[in-house]
Amino acid sequence: MGNCWQSLGPQKNTYMRLSLPAVCFVWQIAMIILFGVFIRYDKESDAHWAEHKKAENLTDIDNEFYFRYPSFQDVHVMIFVGFGFLMTFLKRYSYGGVGFNFLIASFGLQWALLMQGWFHSLDLTTGKIYIGIESLINADFCCAGSLIAFGALLGKVSPVQLMVVTLFGVTLFAVEEYIILDLLHCRDAGGSMVIHCFGGYYGLAISWVLYRPNLHQSKRLQGSSYHSDLFAMIGTLFLWMFWPSFNSAITDRGDGQHRTVINTYIALASSVLTAYAMSSMFQKRGKLDMVHIQNASLAGAVAMGTAAEFMITPYGSLIVGFFMGIISTFGYLFVTPFLERSLKLQDTCGIHNLHAVPGMLGGFIGAIVAATATEEVYSKEGLINVFDKEGKFADRSMGTQGAYQAAGTCVSIVFGLVGGVIVGLILKIPIWGDTADDHCFDDEAYWELPEEEEETLSPVLEYNNHMSHKGQDITESSFTVEQL
Amino acid sequence: MGNCWQSLGPQKNTYMRLSLPAVCFVWQIAMIILFGVFIRYDKESDAHWAEHKKAENLTDIDNEFYFRYPSFQDVHVMIFVGFGFLMTFLKRYSYGGVGFNFLIASFGLQWALLMQGWFHSLDLTTGKIYIGIESLINADFCCAGSLIAFGALLGKVSPVQLMVVTLFGVTLFAVEEYIILDLLHCRDAGGSMVIHCFGGYYGLAISWVLYRPNLHQSKRLQGSSYHSDLFAMIGTLFLWMFWPSFNSAITDRGDGQHRTVINTYIALASSVLTAYAMSSMFQKRGKLDMVHIQNASLAGAVAMGTAAEFMITPYGSLIVGFFMGIISTFGYLFVTPFLERSLKLQDTCGIHNLHAVPGMLGGFIGAIVAATATEEVYSKEGLINVFDKEGKFADRSMGTQGAYQAAGTCVSIVFGLVGGVIVGLILKIPIWGDTADDHCFDDEAYWELPEEEEETLSPVLEYNNHMSHKGQDITESSFTVEQL
Amino acid sequence: MGNCWQSLGPQKNTYMRLSLPAVCFVWQIAMIILFGVFIRYDKESDAHWAEHKKAENLTDIDNEFYFRYPSFQDVHVMIFVGFGFLMTFLKRYSYGGVGFNFLIASFGLQWALLMQGWFHSLDLTTGKIYIGIESLINADFCCAGSLIAFGALLGKVSPVQLMVVTLFGVTLFAVEEYIILDLLHCRDAGGSMVIHCFGGYYGLAISWVLYRPNLHQSKRLQGSSYHSDLFAMIGTLFLWMFWPSFNSAITDRGDGQHRTVINTYIALASSVLTAYAMSSMFQKRGKLDMVHIQNASLAGAVAMGTAAEFMITPYGSLIVGFFMGIISTFGYLFVTPFLERSLKLQDTCGIHNLHAVPGMLGGFIGAIVAATATEEVYSKEGLINVFDKEGKFADRSMGTQGAYQAAGTCVSIVFGLVGGVIVGLILKIPIWGDTADDHCFDDEAYWELPEEEEETLSPVLEYNNHMSHKGQDITESSFTVEQL
Repeated sequence: MGNCWQSLGPQKNTYMRLSLPAVCFVWQIAMIILFGVFIRYDKESDAHWAEHKKAENLTDIDNEFYFRYPSFQDVHVMIFVGFGFLMTFLKRYSYGGVGFNFLIASFGLQWALLMQGWFHSLDLTTGKIYIGIESLINADFCCAGSLIAFGALLGKVSPVQLMVVTLFGVTLFAVEEYIILDLLHCRDAGGSMVIHCFGGYYGLAISWVLYRPNLHQSKRLQGSSYHSDLFAMIGTLFLWMFWPSFNSAITDRGDGQHRTVINTYIALASSVLTAYAMSSMFQKRGKLDMVHIQNASLAGAVAMGTAAEFMITPYGSLIVGFFMGIISTFGYLFVTPFLERSLKLQDTCGIHNLHAVPGMLGGFIGAIVAATATEEVYSKEGLINVFDKEGKFADRSMGTQGAYQAAGTCVSIVFGLVGGVIVGLILKIPIWGDTADDHCFDDEAYWELPEEEEETLSPVLEYNNHMSHKGQDITESSFTVEQL
Repeated sequence: MGNCWQSLGPQKNTYMRLSLPAVCFVWQIAMIILFGVFIRYDKESDAHWAEHKKAENLTDIDNEFYFRYPSFQDVHVMIFVGFGFLMTFLKRYSYGGVGFNFLIASFGLQWALLMQGWFHSLDLTTGKIYIGIESLINADFCCAGSLIAFGALLGKVSPVQLMVVTLFGVTLFAVEEYIILDLLHCRDAGGSMVIHCFGGYYGLAISWVLYRPNLHQSKRLQGSSYHSDLFAMIGTLFLWMFWPSFNSAITDRGDGQHRTVINTYIALASSVLTAYAMSSMFQKRGKLDMVHIQNASLAGAVAMGTAAEFMITPYGSLIVGFFMGIISTFGYLFVTPFLERSLKLQDTCGIHNLHAVPGMLGGFIGAIVAATATEEVYSKEGLINVFDKEGKFADRSMGTQGAYQAAGTCVSIVFGLVGGVIVGLILKIPIWGDTADDHCFDDEAYWELPEEEEETLSPVLEYNNHMSHKGQDITESSFTVEQL
Repeated sequence: MGNCWQSLGPQKNTYMRLSLPAVCFVWQIAMIILFGVFIRYDKESDAHWAEHKKAENLTDIDNEFYFRYPSFQDVHVMIFVGFGFLMTFLKRYSYGGVGFNFLIASFGLQWALLMQGWFHSLDLTTGKIYIGIESLINADFCCAGSLIAFGALLGKVSPVQLMVVTLFGVTLFAVEEYIILDLLHCRDAGGSMVIHCFGGYYGLAISWVLYRPNLHQSKRLQGSSYHSDLFAMIGTLFLWMFWPSFNSAITDRGDGQHRTVINTYIALASSVLTAYAMSSMFQKRGKLDMVHIQNASLAGAVAMGTAAEFMITPYGSLIVGFFMGIISTFGYLFVTPFLERSLKLQDTCGIHNLHAVPGMLGGFIGAIVAATATEEVYSKEGLINVFDKEGKFADRSMGTQGAYQAAGTCVSIVFGLVGGVIVGLILKIPIWGDTADDHCFDDEAYWELPEEEEETLSPVLEYNNHMSHKGQDITESSFTVEQL
């Protein structure tokens, strides 16, 4: 096959030999310089901790590391295997799905350590950012926003464009997170607002700007194969299983992490049942559709990103999961096709249904649960802990807190949409090496592919290959046969 | 391809568009109501813990969460990725393997939280069940019984039937567990008896009742493909790696969890060597068989489910693993074919050899190790801890304990067999949408499948597809060629 | 297909029906006996801990188990899924990659518990080895050396040969580790020297001795297929994600583990960017090569195996990752082909570029970072902790420590090369059942393979299969068609 496809359709230059290495090298060198200037170990990861521990009469287990590390590793798996393999579902874009996810998350987390450091933990006396295990978790979270956006763009953009999406995505994330968590003083441990809602609308806005009217030309590649759907299930399941860790990774120690895990676990189980139900109910032969199973079963956890650490109650979690499974599957069935037809919005992975809408709803659910929190349910101490009612926020009423949570959700939507449109326009500059409409969803553009003829080694295929090599253009030999 | 297969063989209605959504919605709504009535956060996951902690002078790390969460996540991976991918080995039932596993485990764990709650932790003063991290682990365990049963039924039943299997499986599990652990006061942390032995015989009994005399009609689908076996290895390895967490997840803190991990790790390593040895020895050309590798290498851990927390010694663990690898592979080679011929017992995954027999033997091994426990080996305190010799059981001799352990194993077998026969008879009612004999092991019945013609994109196949589309029925064009 | 390949090429006997079972059984029985004589639970995993805890006024959480178990499980995943799936990349040797990895790691860890026990923790008063969670981590580490060597030999040796490689590999590992860590008193928590450098040169030396001049005869099998590369990405990603746990699993509690994780995480992210950049830059069409992505992205962590626990600073970690990504990809592009041409060194997985060189460089990087360590940066207490400056090593200057670290690296190279040559010569004895040159990289030799004709079930292929069955030799029927 090799180059043959390049002779078809309107020519576009997907040659990355200069731009991709240039971007990678320049940005990585910039990271080294900025890390050199700004980033240092925090108190608990510095070798001085030995003395600090003695002075404060601490024991080893008091190191924050032991409260966060297992959750961190789970989150790390979600970012790289979860998101990565979920995006292998296309029959001929699996390398791009998992490979570009790997690239942009690796860049994004470095940039996130800096951006989040400047906004959240810059020590003004020393001018340094001190990082520890919680910084790594937050960096992974910060990447998640851009990876969600990648889901809408999957197969339609070049790796250099994805690096740009990530650079701006992480930057926007750090700013909106600063506004929502620090200025508005919202709680959003699992990131319904700051991660999913922002990331979802960011990706949708970019995709809307980059609308490809002739995308149907690569329709043949826009589906899955039997095995690519199984690879995607690896992604789905690792996301599903570890989502309790995602939502609880940076919540309060003790009951905070404990409760968040329970709520997320329960909401996820409930989503699965309604996703299966909806999938079967709306297919004409009652058969299940892998797209729904792979995605909608996760919607409950997205929508619990804010409320999971609150006292939403176990049955409250079940109810959230119940409706999210329905809404998300409904989105895949009807809303995504509608958006493509009417709004000219092409959303490869359907992030609208898995992240944007459930994230937004999760923000509002969080607002309602916060607004109705009482001292009776939480205890006085509990209410202070959960909502971080300290300093100037000590006297904020729960109703006001709810209003701020709702406002935070709106901030994340605005950041996503406006930021996405701007980034989309930047990406329209024709220098980034994206493919032509008829070669989207094809790894051929950016990856050296193995020669497939030898994959199946049965004699029949070897015979066929033999024939195809002889005639170059196989339709020729087909004519020969028919002419006989 | 589409519907074409439906024109062959005796018609059976696999149309799930009404029954599957109905079951999912009704049961999920029932769960919401029951959770609302019964389920609350326990002391350590409730926001009141902040005050409790102060009153009791505890620190954050004393929260049970930190003792159990890493193990919980490993168990969770085993249930969803381990069991799920282990069952993808069939060439055309991989969606069903991983997808139905996902569905029934998600339902099962909700029902398990209720059933186990009613039997083990219902607070009679408030009428509530208080759940924490240990409840989630136990709920996952409880599902495992039904997932094991699924292994015997793989490819032969409808998703609705599997929901029924799970509903009754979880119910039976909670009752037998109550009898074995609470009434007989057995120790069975890793569930040789309550999980594997019960689940194995439960599945076998159901499969025996559902015997399909003409199953050979779908023989063409009853094998694996090169890649489906690799997907199954993902399941095998995650089960194998995380089984130390499975057996230790709810054992005593400290030395209990520590010792259980060591014993399970060692037994598993030993199983692998004897499984490979047996697999090679009994194939006529000395070649290894993936079925044995995928399954028998796990048998050591199943058989250590009871004894792993005891002082079985490291070489004792090696010996258990040694014989289990042999017995399990022997089962796959000779017993399963024998059972199918003589007892009319069709066991798709061979759960007889991986769960039923090793689980039963594990129960008896546990009985022997318990009966021979001495204060010298365990220390006085240690003996009390390990065997929970408290209250009315404080004076039970170790010999008596061993006898009770053996009795417990028998209880689990009886529950499995009797329960399985009853559930099997329920499933014979012809309303559940199972497939005809000649379309077992085929995802086509319950899943929207991608069009495979486009999977391999080599020009040869495109040519072939072209031909096949022209003639609709490919045998026609084959005749044409031959007539020339 | 079946046996047909055996009729081609020079005959070699790959019949394993006697030798493989014999080796497995004999060695496993030897393990049982040796475990019976030597291995016991350590203080923290023995039931006596209950009394010990009371006497020492400890709490449950003080058990070493809770400091190490999450890291242990991550390391375990790396050994079995990480290494195993990374080696599935060959289109027709995926069973061998993951399956033999499983076999030799399971044997190796048992032998490692004994060997490392004898060298590091034999209690001379009782003559026993007491094992706990740290022993399990070290046993997994010890296997890693042999699994790395397997990478160079992949597809060219028999399972019995691999068992021999592992037996000697683990033995050599324990000796060099004793010299480097105990006698020279080097620090090498993540094993740049003792694991990667040793394992890399060990494998290369064996492969050099076993040079196959006619290996090009199986060139058709020496590549990947689209899906086999995706399976390999599972291995890559689990290695990549869990490497912070690998490097930190046995470092000092508290800040030691915490800092090691941060450094490894950062170095890995940096490697990814330069690996992608190099991969694209040196392909003529600027396309990415999966081989580089799968391997070179990991090189940063290999090279941080020694230095990650030191105060190398975050930007120092970035710099290490930066250059390792470049060096490793450069190796895959130019050095491996050069070695094969000039040195007659066939290195299937390119372990030269992922383990040998980055491991060696990691050893020297560690030496430099150690030599430049100051009390100002580490604090007095910190310097003692990190470099274990106790007993007779209390007064060793940091410059001297650096020199010893460098010497340790040389020891590991010498052990690898000399040990590898000797083991290679042993493996040349023609009794081990390796394949002929034209049937390397083929699972057919050692595995029962599913009949591939039925894998793809499209009518077209069924027709083709039908034809191929009729004519046996498909070229015959091809002639028939052409003669018409």
